[in-house]
Amino acid sequence: MSRFKVEVLVTPRPGLLDPQGKAIHHALSSLGYDAVEDVRVGKAIYLEVAAATPEDARERAEEMCRKLLANPVTEDFRITAAEADGAAP
Amino acid sequence: MSRFKVEVLVTPRPGLLDPQGKAIHHALSSLGYDAVEDVRVGKAIYLEVAAATPEDARERAEEMCRKLLANPVTEDFRITAAEADGAAP
Repeated sequence: MSRFKVEVLVTPRPGLLDPQGKAIHHALSSLGYDAVEDVRVGKAIYLEVAAATPEDARERAEEMCRKLLANPVTEDFRITAAEADGAAP
Repeated sequence: MSRFKVEVLVTPRPGLLDPQGKAIHHALSSLGYDAVEDVRVGKAIYLEVAAATPEDARERAEEMCRKLLANPVTEDFRITAAEADGAAP
């Protein structure tokens, strides 16, 4: 068993309302950042998982996403697994 | 001017308390995922920025992080800029 760092990015589905993104977009405009055309906000979840292979760690994380981490109706998720090197994210 | 998709990952600094991560860790344990050893939760922010070059887009995003998107005392951030291809994150 090795330890793997798994990065899970959970984002609101395209087309769905994202009030947090809208609020940040508005705040950036107020600060003068007119070049910003869109803002979407999601979650970045970092898991440390004991598993035999990175694929195994990835699969477990996918299951966790379906069961808990993401809302399948309103959110998409992307998963990347890498061997843990001791450096925290 | 081109449009760039900028991914900003804001994460709690190592060593600092992360109550959201703790809550998710606890919930995963309750679901039987004992192989999960640590959970940290941050924000994934996707910006669409009009800029001349990816470096320019990246620099603007860094400024936005320092001014608004991240808390420099408690959070770290990582920025990746790529030319927008029309696909939403």
